[in-house]
Amino acid sequence: MSVINYPQKVKIVEVGPRDGLQNEASMVATEAKVTLIEKLADAGLSVVEATSFVSPKWVPQMGDNAAVMAQIKRLPGVSYPVLTPNMKGFEAALAAGATEVAIFAAASESFSQKNINCSIAESIDRFTPIMAAAKANNIRVRGYVSCVLGCPYEGAVAPEVVADVAAKLYQMGCYEISLGDTIGVGTPLKAQAMVACVAKQVPLNALAIHFHDTYGQAMSNILACLQLGISTVDSSIAGLGGCPYAKGASGNVATEDVAYMLQGMGIDTGVNLEQLLSASRFISDVLQRRPISKVANALADDASN
Amino acid sequence: MSVINYPQKVKIVEVGPRDGLQNEASMVATEAKVTLIEKLADAGLSVVEATSFVSPKWVPQMGDNAAVMAQIKRLPGVSYPVLTPNMKGFEAALAAGATEVAIFAAASESFSQKNINCSIAESIDRFTPIMAAAKANNIRVRGYVSCVLGCPYEGAVAPEVVADVAAKLYQMGCYEISLGDTIGVGTPLKAQAMVACVAKQVPLNALAIHFHDTYGQAMSNILACLQLGISTVDSSIAGLGGCPYAKGASGNVATEDVAYMLQGMGIDTGVNLEQLLSASRFISDVLQRRPISKVANALADDASN
Repeated sequence: MSVINYPQKVKIVEVGPRDGLQNEASMVATEAKVTLIEKLADAGLSVVEATSFVSPKWVPQMGDNAAVMAQIKRLPGVSYPVLTPNMKGFEAALAAGATEVAIFAAASESFSQKNINCSIAESIDRFTPIMAAAKANNIRVRGYVSCVLGCPYEGAVAPEVVADVAAKLYQMGCYEISLGDTIGVGTPLKAQAMVACVAKQVPLNALAIHFHDTYGQAMSNILACLQLGISTVDSSIAGLGGCPYAKGASGNVATEDVAYMLQGMGIDTGVNLEQLLSASRFISDVLQRRPISKVANALADDASN
Repeated sequence: MSVINYPQKVKIVEVGPRDGLQNEASMVATEAKVTLIEKLADAGLSVVEATSFVSPKWVPQMGDNAAVMAQIKRLPGVSYPVLTPNMKGFEAALAAGATEVAIFAAASESFSQKNINCSIAESIDRFTPIMAAAKANNIRVRGYVSCVLGCPYEGAVAPEVVADVAAKLYQMGCYEISLGDTIGVGTPLKAQAMVACVAKQVPLNALAIHFHDTYGQAMSNILACLQLGISTVDSSIAGLGGCPYAKGASGNVATEDVAYMLQGMGIDTGVNLEQLLSASRFISDVLQRRPISKVANALADDASN
């Protein structure tokens, strides 16, 4: 029997209110978003991605970003990062009182071109003024890398390209790099190989994993990466953003399912599962659908039996 | 980076036509069952559990067991086990031309009492004449142990109890023991500890794992058990038997998702994923619902884009 040293603690980065709701068809009222974010922080999550400062023309779901930031009661010790794709977004985030922002680049040239109309190198160059302004204002910056295990246009993505993009973001000053399997095609050994390659250039404790469950592989991929020493995992309450019955669903792995696994493994997340389920039921009721989380559905069935 | 020796080959035991359909609300026509079984064998699965010889009073869905066995075209090298809870069932199975049967016991006294009205020891004693008759007729017998990681009545189940039940079935002559997490509460380290405990009494290559995805843990549990050397995995096409929106769903892990993971890891299963998906679409159309498999849904979306 192999002996593996799992991390004693794992930080869950909750991305539901931003990455999740941004990919839901329904518009959610500001008040509900605020309640959701507060419930998630109350449940013990130390990072709750709150909103995105992007043009409402492109992402109408996040048009109330400043109102969300103004209304949430912030808990001490909890970070509420917001996505800022450009300087205009960064300035708006700063004005709204954000203390942490996130930027993103792709590990695939085709995806970068189709998604943000520029090359990977250009996209990284555009972040230079944001990084400088963030430093000047004492704002922490998280970096996302998308398409780390596959691209919808190019297919397989070389781990060395992921490592190169991750290293650039890290060298620019991102304190943490989240490696996103945007299309969910990764499997455990490929995920490990990718993380191991990136870890040659970026310290493991500065890496996070962000798996989509599009092909049902998120949980086993997460387990595989924990085995390499990864201790930060992105997930989305109620699987927000990943409706299994919608085309092009992003398929975010559900926070409840990740928390259940970690709890069962004796790994400390600081999260209270009951309160997490309360947040999950709340937003699912708002969206008038069942959560995608299996844990949430299993325990809802229990409760109604 | 830890180096783990995964098995080079994994045998997938397809339980959809029996364990799956038995737990579906819809009655499926014999002809559709036969087509499903044949499609699954055509897809490269070497074991397809075909039906159950139980009283139609208790399990009406399997009332056509003899007709199913009579009608399926059997491929050489493929086994079509049938569940036989008692001697009457065994004799009917033999008459129907079965060459492999399956028996089952629980690792929880309460579950055994509530499910089959006898103690664990009594249930095992009752199999003695079946084992003798099987040997006399050159019939292979597979043993199932349920509740290996938790019981709906007792909660946690001690690995030693599982090991004891598994060992008894093995000593009686079962060539393979399938360890079933009936209520799906297992997590990776508990699954490994249970398997490691059982493996002290039953050779690893005579053990199979049978995970339910009720709490979203099946895939990571499977990965964890492969790491111990387990190379036989039970699963159910289209996640049959595990509708996530039904109360008390058994939540069988979907064969497509397991096959996708193993294929992505370079582990040989002998299974053709395209043909597997064809079988999945076929039975899902019959049941007039989408498959529960994430892979099936993701690729169905792709195909219709």
